[in-house]
Amino acid sequence: MTHCSAGFSVEEKRGIYRAIYERRDVRSHFLPEPVPDDVLARILDAAHHAPSVGFMQPWDFIVIRDPSIRNEVRENFEKANRQAAAIYEGEQRSLYDGLKLAAIVESPLNLCITCDHQRTKGAGLGRQSNPSTDIYSTVCAVQNLWLAARAESVGVGWVSILDTQALKATLQIPPEVIPVAYLCIGYVSEFGSQPELEKRGWEHREALANLIHYDRWNIRPSSPATTPAQPPSGP
Amino acid sequence: MTHCSAGFSVEEKRGIYRAIYERRDVRSHFLPEPVPDDVLARILDAAHHAPSVGFMQPWDFIVIRDPSIRNEVRENFEKANRQAAAIYEGEQRSLYDGLKLAAIVESPLNLCITCDHQRTKGAGLGRQSNPSTDIYSTVCAVQNLWLAARAESVGVGWVSILDTQALKATLQIPPEVIPVAYLCIGYVSEFGSQPELEKRGWEHREALANLIHYDRWNIRPSSPATTPAQPPSGP
Repeated sequence: MTHCSAGFSVEEKRGIYRAIYERRDVRSHFLPEPVPDDVLARILDAAHHAPSVGFMQPWDFIVIRDPSIRNEVRENFEKANRQAAAIYEGEQRSLYDGLKLAAIVESPLNLCITCDHQRTKGAGLGRQSNPSTDIYSTVCAVQNLWLAARAESVGVGWVSILDTQALKATLQIPPEVIPVAYLCIGYVSEFGSQPELEKRGWEHREALANLIHYDRWNIRPSSPATTPAQPPSGP
Repeated sequence: MTHCSAGFSVEEKRGIYRAIYERRDVRSHFLPEPVPDDVLARILDAAHHAPSVGFMQPWDFIVIRDPSIRNEVRENFEKANRQAAAIYEGEQRSLYDGLKLAAIVESPLNLCITCDHQRTKGAGLGRQSNPSTDIYSTVCAVQNLWLAARAESVGVGWVSILDTQALKATLQIPPEVIPVAYLCIGYVSEFGSQPELEKRGWEHREALANLIHYDRWNIRPSSPATTPAQPPSGP
């Protein structure tokens, strides 16, 4: 049965599931070669086609190649990461210290995706109940870019451990604009078969069935939907 | 040149770009037939494979079919939407009133995707600089689901205009858990060729070039990267 005029072929469908299952948060294995302009343009345009509340398109993209700026961001990360590490002790601290959590200088390209709280596009539609929906739209743009990049064999790593105010100063971002994501981008020698934090034993993947509720919170009748069918490309 | 062991075929790549460009925020054209359990399982599992800070997986999924619950949510929407409409005047008010902004009862399935601020998975990794990163992870899950749904010919509409506290009461969501997205889901008779708010003249799409900066905010040298190449499936 055809549900719409333009169904996806089996291989097209496999493409989207492969991107979802084979996407990684990449911190290692970056290759030095540059990302060509046409590839960068395609993944930025993918981000720009994310959904946005009221069609607000609250995002901007700062493409960062300048080594001196990246060194400043790396110092920002290193300071924030020393503070972050301090809450862990013993075995967990050793594990934490062994993790590679950024590749700001090693990757050929950094990208900061921001959200402009004062952008007037969309005339406020959909933002009165929850003004944070502009941030949500910006994150949708990040995820679009991440999946398109995977299909282009380009790795992306999202660096969360940064002092936001210091980052805004480095990139001269105006007060009303929020840096939502700071990404390290580049071709990689490999994509891991599982998330790095899973492989290193930091955390395991929860069973999906434990996260599904029916009609109301904590109502969990047994149902076939709680046991996902194998996707086309396998998880 | 092969950049990694498993490159995407042309058709697989077209699949991801098609999902990105042909995804719509659907409010009309829902068909009454149910979404089969295996399809629902696949799109939920796609959401569950989103990136998450510290591999925290902060999300839960409330699958809502009960008509009485959906009626309560519809009443919530209608009240919030009357308040939202009141800020518009004249022609803009007429345009607003003509927009269909939810399909809570007409779609066969609703889904609430939540974020648990107190989930201990991930042991706080990556959340010290910005505690909101768990919300960002949850939005990535929404976008994964949205794109997988498009490949399955299933429409998704994100309802932003809801009183969050009332929604939490209806769905019995605990205090520390945030409902991030309330989605209307189902097969549709068609996917629009452009976003509904663009078609209706509410807002136009910004030129991508106006949103790209180089190295620092507002630095915009002319560059080929600002003129995106045509993606495989066209925008």
